[in-house]
Amino acid sequence: MKLIRHGASGDERPGLIDRNGGLRDLSGKLRDLAGPGLSPESLDRLRLLDPESLPLLPAGTRLGPCVGGTRNFVAIGLNFADHAAETGAAIPPEPIVFNKAPSCIAGPNDPVIIPKGSAKTDWEVELAVVIGRHASYVHANEALGYVAGACICNDVSEREWQMERGGTWTKGKGCPTFGPLGPWLVTLDEIPDLKNLAMSLDVNGQRMQTGSTATMIFDVAQLVAYVSHFMILEPGDVITTGTPPGVGLGMKPPRYLKSGDAMTLRIDGLGEQRQTVIAFDDWTAKVSAGEPTN
Amino acid sequence: MKLIRHGASGDERPGLIDRNGGLRDLSGKLRDLAGPGLSPESLDRLRLLDPESLPLLPAGTRLGPCVGGTRNFVAIGLNFADHAAETGAAIPPEPIVFNKAPSCIAGPNDPVIIPKGSAKTDWEVELAVVIGRHASYVHANEALGYVAGACICNDVSEREWQMERGGTWTKGKGCPTFGPLGPWLVTLDEIPDLKNLAMSLDVNGQRMQTGSTATMIFDVAQLVAYVSHFMILEPGDVITTGTPPGVGLGMKPPRYLKSGDAMTLRIDGLGEQRQTVIAFDDWTAKVSAGEPTN
Repeated sequence: MKLIRHGASGDERPGLIDRNGGLRDLSGKLRDLAGPGLSPESLDRLRLLDPESLPLLPAGTRLGPCVGGTRNFVAIGLNFADHAAETGAAIPPEPIVFNKAPSCIAGPNDPVIIPKGSAKTDWEVELAVVIGRHASYVHANEALGYVAGACICNDVSEREWQMERGGTWTKGKGCPTFGPLGPWLVTLDEIPDLKNLAMSLDVNGQRMQTGSTATMIFDVAQLVAYVSHFMILEPGDVITTGTPPGVGLGMKPPRYLKSGDAMTLRIDGLGEQRQTVIAFDDWTAKVSAGEPTN
Repeated sequence: MKLIRHGASGDERPGLIDRNGGLRDLSGKLRDLAGPGLSPESLDRLRLLDPESLPLLPAGTRLGPCVGGTRNFVAIGLNFADHAAETGAAIPPEPIVFNKAPSCIAGPNDPVIIPKGSAKTDWEVELAVVIGRHASYVHANEALGYVAGACICNDVSEREWQMERGGTWTKGKGCPTFGPLGPWLVTLDEIPDLKNLAMSLDVNGQRMQTGSTATMIFDVAQLVAYVSHFMILEPGDVITTGTPPGVGLGMKPPRYLKSGDAMTLRIDGLGEQRQTVIAFDDWTAKVSAGEPTN
């Protein structure tokens, strides 16, 4: 299944994509794609439905983040050997774990806001997975059973705040809109091989990142298991698994996002994200003028 | 007001402490001490109630964490000059920010579990604040208006996983039970001076940490403002503000927690936490045998 959340920001309802690509409303069948709604039992119940029997949503319906109620937004650093090389970092002997603030989660096509005072806002296309069951001390060979599905994540990053402001990476990873998730939460039975998905990110139509999950240092099962040994993972928690080469930080000279830039992210079978970048001041001016911000 | 959450783990209801120290049930008046229940308007409504008119709770009622629905559990590192010195770290020029997994939050008197394979589980008495209103780009002189109240936090830490396993501190800070919060969420009008609260932590009756919020490098208002410039803070989010000297890591030789140890934490006006430490294997044996784990 390709599951979605649709509607106004903060008031999203569940839905799914039918075989013709139509958006169907699931809100009569499920409260939200969150918490217990993500369990294997809940997903099995949804599989019994005839998508064509569900209400069709109008064209232009906004897509929200494809998971609700996320409390722990875990991210993995430097998980592609070639990306580690471009940033000048060594290949990590075990996964690097950090957090993105859950309040940074946004819809897949919402604007990405360059924070007030930022000069180094950067992109990162990533494969993210959503946890479907309480996971603690899980073995890697069982770990995928704890995953509700996968989606695209843009792990938007402010490089100065991530790396030049002391302490951990937290300051540069959780700014508002820095975590677009979606468009779809794709259940694992629809993904032929999690370890062989092409990934790309374009800025203004120019290819910046090209990669494949085939070159991940630690795979999804290993990461879920690893993280679950340090903390309990709960339904709705997200792990985003690292980015391939081609980020702005790695260019010579580095290139960062500016107001008006358009990002397009794609991962095989997981759809596409499109975001327009907007500077904080431009965005607040729009909000003050009552203009649409999506 | 001294607000509490009471009842079984995961099913807590709101309450408060009356003038005689009795526990009163608020569940007829408020859904939970979470999200909108923490707003200034909600707290003002509670202030109008006569505590003596509320149902008295039986002695022995379990206290849960004094806030529910926390999505972002932010922590500040090395925020006491004398603690920075004992760990051999420099005084940070700006706050060090890291995350504790929200799934580590526990009641103030729940057991603290030494995680599987841990040899370096350590204590940290801290002043924590709970956010009551959506906070983004807040100025320090207005920051306390975004705080619903304060409580004790034991920022339990696994030092090897925090510092010797690569990446950020995340791995050693969010293990199950590593975040006892409470007993009370004390509203700021009941705290004469947030900048002058004595703090202490005993292990088995022996004083380990003695300190005061007077020696914090960055005060609560500065921290709330600072964090809100990097991420949106939402009602129910927690910021724990750093620990004074006397942690196990700083001793010569270092001393870490072992099964059976008893911790007592106190902060002026915020009450007392008491936790029994239990090794992972002892705890799972208790659970398997159906014995009470609290």
